[in-house]
Amino acid sequence: MDFNKAYNEKLTYINHSLENLLKDRDSHPAVLSAMEYSLLAGGKRLRPVLLLSAYELAYLQDNSQKIEITKSELDFILPMACAIEMIHNYSLIHDDLPAMDNDDYRRGKLTNHKVFGEATAILAGDGLLNLAYEVMLENIPDSPQMINNYVKAMSEIAYSAGISGMIGGQIADMENQGEANEEEMLKYIHTHKTEALITASLKAGVLAYNNEPEVLNGVIAYGKALGLAFQITDDILDLTGEFSQLGKATGQDEKMGKQTYPARYGLEKSKVLAREYIDESISCLEPFGTKSEFLKFLSLSILDRKR
Amino acid sequence: MDFNKAYNEKLTYINHSLENLLKDRDSHPAVLSAMEYSLLAGGKRLRPVLLLSAYELAYLQDNSQKIEITKSELDFILPMACAIEMIHNYSLIHDDLPAMDNDDYRRGKLTNHKVFGEATAILAGDGLLNLAYEVMLENIPDSPQMINNYVKAMSEIAYSAGISGMIGGQIADMENQGEANEEEMLKYIHTHKTEALITASLKAGVLAYNNEPEVLNGVIAYGKALGLAFQITDDILDLTGEFSQLGKATGQDEKMGKQTYPARYGLEKSKVLAREYIDESISCLEPFGTKSEFLKFLSLSILDRKR
Repeated sequence: MDFNKAYNEKLTYINHSLENLLKDRDSHPAVLSAMEYSLLAGGKRLRPVLLLSAYELAYLQDNSQKIEITKSELDFILPMACAIEMIHNYSLIHDDLPAMDNDDYRRGKLTNHKVFGEATAILAGDGLLNLAYEVMLENIPDSPQMINNYVKAMSEIAYSAGISGMIGGQIADMENQGEANEEEMLKYIHTHKTEALITASLKAGVLAYNNEPEVLNGVIAYGKALGLAFQITDDILDLTGEFSQLGKATGQDEKMGKQTYPARYGLEKSKVLAREYIDESISCLEPFGTKSEFLKFLSLSILDRKR
Repeated sequence: MDFNKAYNEKLTYINHSLENLLKDRDSHPAVLSAMEYSLLAGGKRLRPVLLLSAYELAYLQDNSQKIEITKSELDFILPMACAIEMIHNYSLIHDDLPAMDNDDYRRGKLTNHKVFGEATAILAGDGLLNLAYEVMLENIPDSPQMINNYVKAMSEIAYSAGISGMIGGQIADMENQGEANEEEMLKYIHTHKTEALITASLKAGVLAYNNEPEVLNGVIAYGKALGLAFQITDDILDLTGEFSQLGKATGQDEKMGKQTYPARYGLEKSKVLAREYIDESISCLEPFGTKSEFLKFLSLSILDRKR
C-alpha cells in the first residue's frame, strides 16, 4: 500500500468537501471570505484524516472479509470530518489574535486578523465553530440506530472542543505563561489543548460506525499517545523549525514564556519522549494488524514532520 | 392569569437551570468564572422564555382539554432553552469586545473583557457557544420520534445563530458603520442580528414538541414581527434610555454611525413602527385564543420596556 498516495487522496477528498460546505452559504461576503481564507489555506488535515481512518478501522473490524472501505461508504461521515477541521481552524484564528498569541503568520500566510481585521477574525472564528455544528446537524442520518451513533459521535466532539477540553487547555496556556513550569500543568495544557480534539476525532469515527469496545478503547489509547507526541513535536518545531517550512514564526513559545516540553525537559529529552509516545501509539494498534497500517503510517509521519 | 407572576416563575426556573448547567463542569476556573459572570448576570431571558412558551403553545394546541403545562412536562425542553440563552450571552460578550462595539458596561456591570481581560473574554464567549451545543447533546431524548423533533429544533437554533443568521447580521452591522443608511441594509442587519435568534427560539419550541404547521407558521410570523419590534425598541432605548435603567452606555449607536431605525426614520416614526410590529405580532396569535395569552403579554411588555 502506498501510504503517501492514500494520505493525499484523503486530503483531496477532505479539501474538496470543505470547499463545497462553504460554497453557496447564505451569508455576508465579508465573513465568508475570512472563513475561506483560513479554512481553505491547506494544512495537514490531521483531525479529519484521523476521523475517517478510525471510521474505516471500525468498518474493517466489523467486515472481516473486506480489505478497504469505498468512497461512497465514507461519504456519510465526511461532513463530520470536515466539521472537526472547522473547529480546529476556528481555534487557530482565535489563538492568533493580538489578545492571545498575537501571531502574524500561519501556514505561510498572514493570519486572519492581519488581513481582515480583528472584528472580522473574531466573527470568522465564531462562524466556523457554529458552522461545524450546522454541518453535522444538516447531515444527521435517518435511521434510528444510525442517529444514535451519530449523535454520540457529535457529543464526543462537542465535549472535547469545549471548556472541558480544548478551550480549557487554551485558557490554562494563557494563564500560565511566564509561570514556573510544573509537570502537572504542562500535561494539563497539552492534553486539553491538543490531545483532546485528536482523541475525539478518533472516538467520533468509531462511535459514528458502532461502539465496539475493543476498537473504541484501542483508538482512545492510540489517540492519547499520538496527541501528546503531536504537541511535543509542535513544541520542538517552535524551537528548531524554519519559518520557510513551518509557515509561522518560530521561537514564540520561549518569548511568551509558554509551558512546553523543551522548556521543562530540554530538547533532547523531549525528542526521546516524542519517540516514546509514538512507539506507544503504534503498540496500541497491534490488535488490529494490517487493518490499522494507515494509522501506523500517520504516527510515524508525525515523528518526521517538518511543519 | 397573573402574567408578571408567570414571567417571574419562568425566569427563576431558567436562572436556576443556567446555574446548574455551569456548576461542576470539569474546566479551568478562569474561564468558568468569566462565563458565570456574564451568564448569571440576569437579563430578561427573552429567548428561553419564548422557547418555553412556544413549546407550551404547541402542547396546549395538541391537548385541547388542558389549560396549562406542568413543570415536569417542560423539564425536557429546559436545557435547550438555556442553550439559546448561552448563545445569546456569548454574542454579547464578543460584541462588547474592543475590536467590536468596545462597550464598558452591560446590565449595569463592567463588560466581560473589562473584568477578565480580552483573551479570557474571547474564550468565555467561545466556551458558552460550544457549551450550548454540549448541553443540547447531553439532553437528547431516547425515543426515535422525540430525537427527530429535538434534532430539528437544534438545527433551527444552529442555523439562526450562525453566518446565515446572527453572525451574518453582526458582520453587516460592523461593515456598515458610518455608511449611508439604506433601508435594505438596515432590514438585513435587524432581521439577522436580532430577529433570527428570536424567531428560532419560537420555532425550536414548537419543533421540539411536534411540527404542527398551523402552530409553526403562527409562531414564525409572530417572531418576525416581535423580533423587529424588539430591535427597534433597542435602537430607541439607545437614544432615549437612561444608563441607570439600561445598565449600559447610551448614545453609542449614533457615536459609531450604526444603522438604526431612529437614524433612518427619526424617533417618532420609529416608535410608530415598533407599535405597528407589536400589533402585527399580536394579530398572529389570534388563531390560538387564550392559549397564546402569555405570548401576547410578552409582546406588550416589549413595547413598555425600559431596559
